[in-house]
Amino acid sequence: MIRAGIVGSTGYAGAELVRLLVGHPDVALTVLTSRQFADQRFDAVYPAMAGVVDNTCEALSLEHLIEKCDVVFTALPHKIPMEIVPDLVEHNIKVVDLSADFRFRDAALYEAFYQRHTAKNLLDRAVYGLSEVYREAIRAAELVGNPGCYPTSTLLPLVPLLKKDMLAIDTIVVDSKSGVSGAGRSLSMGSHYSEMNESFKAYKVAVHRHNPEIDAILTRESGVQVSVTFVPHLVPMTRGMFTTIYATPRKSLSLEAIRSCLESYYEGRPFVRVVGPEGLPDTRNVRGTNFCDIGFTVDEPRRRVILTSAIDNLVKGAAGQAVQNMNIMFGLDESAGLLNVPFPV
Amino acid sequence: MIRAGIVGSTGYAGAELVRLLVGHPDVALTVLTSRQFADQRFDAVYPAMAGVVDNTCEALSLEHLIEKCDVVFTALPHKIPMEIVPDLVEHNIKVVDLSADFRFRDAALYEAFYQRHTAKNLLDRAVYGLSEVYREAIRAAELVGNPGCYPTSTLLPLVPLLKKDMLAIDTIVVDSKSGVSGAGRSLSMGSHYSEMNESFKAYKVAVHRHNPEIDAILTRESGVQVSVTFVPHLVPMTRGMFTTIYATPRKSLSLEAIRSCLESYYEGRPFVRVVGPEGLPDTRNVRGTNFCDIGFTVDEPRRRVILTSAIDNLVKGAAGQAVQNMNIMFGLDESAGLLNVPFPV
Amino acid sequence: MIRAGIVGSTGYAGAELVRLLVGHPDVALTVLTSRQFADQRFDAVYPAMAGVVDNTCEALSLEHLIEKCDVVFTALPHKIPMEIVPDLVEHNIKVVDLSADFRFRDAALYEAFYQRHTAKNLLDRAVYGLSEVYREAIRAAELVGNPGCYPTSTLLPLVPLLKKDMLAIDTIVVDSKSGVSGAGRSLSMGSHYSEMNESFKAYKVAVHRHNPEIDAILTRESGVQVSVTFVPHLVPMTRGMFTTIYATPRKSLSLEAIRSCLESYYEGRPFVRVVGPEGLPDTRNVRGTNFCDIGFTVDEPRRRVILTSAIDNLVKGAAGQAVQNMNIMFGLDESAGLLNVPFPV
Amino acid sequence: MIRAGIVGSTGYAGAELVRLLVGHPDVALTVLTSRQFADQRFDAVYPAMAGVVDNTCEALSLEHLIEKCDVVFTALPHKIPMEIVPDLVEHNIKVVDLSADFRFRDAALYEAFYQRHTAKNLLDRAVYGLSEVYREAIRAAELVGNPGCYPTSTLLPLVPLLKKDMLAIDTIVVDSKSGVSGAGRSLSMGSHYSEMNESFKAYKVAVHRHNPEIDAILTRESGVQVSVTFVPHLVPMTRGMFTTIYATPRKSLSLEAIRSCLESYYEGRPFVRVVGPEGLPDTRNVRGTNFCDIGFTVDEPRRRVILTSAIDNLVKGAAGQAVQNMNIMFGLDESAGLLNVPFPV
Repeated sequence: MIRAGIVGSTGYAGAELVRLLVGHPDVALTVLTSRQFADQRFDAVYPAMAGVVDNTCEALSLEHLIEKCDVVFTALPHKIPMEIVPDLVEHNIKVVDLSADFRFRDAALYEAFYQRHTAKNLLDRAVYGLSEVYREAIRAAELVGNPGCYPTSTLLPLVPLLKKDMLAIDTIVVDSKSGVSGAGRSLSMGSHYSEMNESFKAYKVAVHRHNPEIDAILTRESGVQVSVTFVPHLVPMTRGMFTTIYATPRKSLSLEAIRSCLESYYEGRPFVRVVGPEGLPDTRNVRGTNFCDIGFTVDEPRRRVILTSAIDNLVKGAAGQAVQNMNIMFGLDESAGLLNVPFPV
Repeated sequence: MIRAGIVGSTGYAGAELVRLLVGHPDVALTVLTSRQFADQRFDAVYPAMAGVVDNTCEALSLEHLIEKCDVVFTALPHKIPMEIVPDLVEHNIKVVDLSADFRFRDAALYEAFYQRHTAKNLLDRAVYGLSEVYREAIRAAELVGNPGCYPTSTLLPLVPLLKKDMLAIDTIVVDSKSGVSGAGRSLSMGSHYSEMNESFKAYKVAVHRHNPEIDAILTRESGVQVSVTFVPHLVPMTRGMFTTIYATPRKSLSLEAIRSCLESYYEGRPFVRVVGPEGLPDTRNVRGTNFCDIGFTVDEPRRRVILTSAIDNLVKGAAGQAVQNMNIMFGLDESAGLLNVPFPV
Repeated sequence: MIRAGIVGSTGYAGAELVRLLVGHPDVALTVLTSRQFADQRFDAVYPAMAGVVDNTCEALSLEHLIEKCDVVFTALPHKIPMEIVPDLVEHNIKVVDLSADFRFRDAALYEAFYQRHTAKNLLDRAVYGLSEVYREAIRAAELVGNPGCYPTSTLLPLVPLLKKDMLAIDTIVVDSKSGVSGAGRSLSMGSHYSEMNESFKAYKVAVHRHNPEIDAILTRESGVQVSVTFVPHLVPMTRGMFTTIYATPRKSLSLEAIRSCLESYYEGRPFVRVVGPEGLPDTRNVRGTNFCDIGFTVDEPRRRVILTSAIDNLVKGAAGQAVQNMNIMFGLDESAGLLNVPFPV
Repeated sequence: MIRAGIVGSTGYAGAELVRLLVGHPDVALTVLTSRQFADQRFDAVYPAMAGVVDNTCEALSLEHLIEKCDVVFTALPHKIPMEIVPDLVEHNIKVVDLSADFRFRDAALYEAFYQRHTAKNLLDRAVYGLSEVYREAIRAAELVGNPGCYPTSTLLPLVPLLKKDMLAIDTIVVDSKSGVSGAGRSLSMGSHYSEMNESFKAYKVAVHRHNPEIDAILTRESGVQVSVTFVPHLVPMTRGMFTTIYATPRKSLSLEAIRSCLESYYEGRPFVRVVGPEGLPDTRNVRGTNFCDIGFTVDEPRRRVILTSAIDNLVKGAAGQAVQNMNIMFGLDESAGLLNVPFPV
């Protein structure tokens, strides 16, 4: 059994990791940390887990993690992970970090959008955990920087087409829509029920921190400088992320060419379902699962390709992809523990 | 492997059976019938299931069911089951019927609230599928009448106390609240989004058909004639059922006595969690699971016991309990295939 | 024009007062106070009001209120109102207090459930602002203690029947369901979107502070000691409150007798609509309005009367009734400023 | 008083017209037609209106309309209006048609996306009812083709910039999000509660019928052929429409230039609120109102302008704009009957 620890287990991404790892056939959950709920049972914080999870949360202790874990998931806001991950890596603990701290190879880019980076020496060794794109590197990684939810939902549809040089790179517009759980469990007016219910709005228009993350990976994969316009929105629902992408094809592009590009890129990958143009992604179809559904259409009269994707922001957009990465790092089937059957409604 | 068929697989209860049985380690799903979607793939009706369920729906054929199934779940509106179940039983197919057709021992009672019964000879042999209460009888049953969602949420908290003669039986009031999926997938104004969203109301006040079902079982278990006041309400959410029960104790009743009564009755039963009075049931905590969470309080100044319960109406209230019953009928662990970890949110 | 001030204008009840008073033909809104948003424009806090409300919030100043107001609405948590109301009343400013501070005649009762009362001398002069029941006293009042939302939704259906001695008083059970806005604008886990969405639960079972308020008024109106069992629940919607009341009639009670009792009691009162038993109240039908819809049924076999009511918790349950009381206090038509047409959806 | 009739009064747009016209100081509602609910009281269909609307629905009768109305609103699916509007116009009844039948000057365009047009002779005389853009023509109109909801939310932000030739016309992408009430009151799987709740998806990607309507008006206003990419999405909420528009500026464009362009275009127009870039539109802020809130940002690094708008799809997107048009046609203040104060939540 792989002994796993979760640092920050009572936030939504952390708790989703608990959900997935408790059901994972090859994992024993040995350490759950929580600053706010240290010494409380996890099922006192999440009563849903009564009778299912019997761990008690503890304060963060590097010693404990090093002693009791083969892998540690850090599900914390950025900054804290870079303070503890170096020690873990040094002790040969594999790490999947769900914050932004190890997503950027370029420290300057990180520092431009976040803050001073205090573990720069690890950036070269960290692998960006977009499982379908970087599987080989993840297999050998000791440290994975797990992607943001918006980047996951944007990159999975875009990367295959950009790698084939199908799109005019300066025409890409990304319009994303996220469920409210993406804002986390910390109290804020932006997650206050009566303010969000029956409400739809954009936020951080063209200034969201996931924008440089998207740009960096698209640039790496396409080999040319890519910079997309990115606008996130909030949807009055708990889970789910939907992304609509617009771009002009470099030359006339058929539906078949797009389908072929996407299907061949994702052949044999269990969590990407290419559903368009016959079908259309819907966040409902991926809720609670690690799937990313991808749709595509060509707006022939306006010479524009439209890509759509749906993920569960807490699963493929966070905890699920983290577990997928752990599976790859440990040589397991990448879908181990992630094959729960979707809900019909 | 147990070969299972689902008659009416594309309604919400049927589709939930598909979800649970596809993930069941001891079951092969051999037949899915659907009148409306015959000859269509199940995942064309529920795209969430793409890559997970590859069955094609077929028109109802008794021959097929008899040939290919060891057990058949009938997830249809009442009346149709009693037309096909006799043939199945005669061919030694075990049946779990999710309609009301085989819930009543007393045909006259059924006929007073539903319609003429055309398979009365089976009523004696049918077992009421409230798994925790009738496990022994279910073990030997060839035909199980799976309980309604409201009765399940009402009976599980009440039966233990009534068996111990703790409550004044003519004082029982049951106030139930159901998510909208309970109304099914058929189109109706009562499930129209804009009519139900941001709306709360009662319906069928004191005249719901689940009332006689509740009364019949309470009467059977308590040994005296019980008749409760029952009022159902609709909650603007998809899944979940919450029931609040009020009754006057026969004599002074302590919290400890209630706890002890409930805990001893449900000892060793994996799907009932007695959470009160320290905790309180919440439909969120049982969503997607087969749990029934039970809370209890004593309103000392008014000499009244208050019981609360939360279930997922589609799982413990329908498909989950049906699978639990199948497990019992086939000698499996009763929780086989039903141990998915709950969602934190 | 009546010059009105609102103390605590940026909470939900305060903001709803702003909505109603801005549209009131006889009122000029002269002072809006807000501790948190002092010196900010009201429409910066509530951008919906841009172009409609041009007031700027100010810190609480008794001098300002006394100088600029004929009536002051105090929309604050309990305790603060009793510190400022005495000064206002002394200066002949009429006051409608939306907290609990002036709802109880009996200081000991208040102190048992809230805290020490520091303005007891005003309790005799304060009138309980259940507009339909105490109109005559409100007309002459200088200080109105505006009722809680749960009491309003409970008392309006019950008072007429209790006055006619129709119900066995020790059999009354009140099961209430409230939208989330009732918890206010202050951040709390109980108003956190992902915790409340798709969730239904009870809270403060039989220990809610509105219970003694309900009991006190029922006792006053019936002339005998009444004590009801009261259980509040939370509904995943913003606005709306639905209450279901169960009681045994003292003697056989016909639908006609109940209808006649309710209709004659509320004859000529514009905001109570007796809709049962042909219709059923629905919170959707009263959203944004000052209506209280009342339904009733008799569960003949169990000899039980069932009353239901629907209000908007922020309107008839708070700000709307406060304005209605102001109208009565100033000799205006009680519906002035409160006749906005309901939304169809 | 203007005598007004509503054909199709029980659909959502029709019922919203009832709401607005009942509260209109200069209108008497003389005829409400409903095929499905003929001879039933309107408040039996919408119980919210009990005590507020006492009209009875009647079957459609041209004679009645001609005899009793000065203005008729046709709130029906396309095709039926073109069968009855010619008669009304001939009898000097002013008409505001909420269907697509009179939105296109070019019959061929209509016929390409809808069906054969049977009242082509009226197309020249019909005025497109985008109130802020065509006020002068509406003032003189006998027949107004009221805009679709998506076009309204798209055109109001775009028209001023296109008129000033600020945008590269072949770069415009329109990503719209609508509440579920836009699908109307007719039952459909697309409005079924459990299918839409907690779900976000695109539909009719780049093939929605509002696309040619948008293109036609943008072409007319800009003087050059414009053709935008348009993708509509569904949001799990009842009311509200949010549109995000992306375009490349023709030359470098400052925030101030955009602000100035929008503010000067809409100067003195009560229902357009230019809120960006300091603020951001939110459907919550316009719910129940006739406002269109417009935001704007410049994504400097990618040289792209981003416009956002929020409307209530049933008000500014349908019934509210229809009433605004009626006001203009009859020489009233354009905001008469439309100044209800917004809800804080």
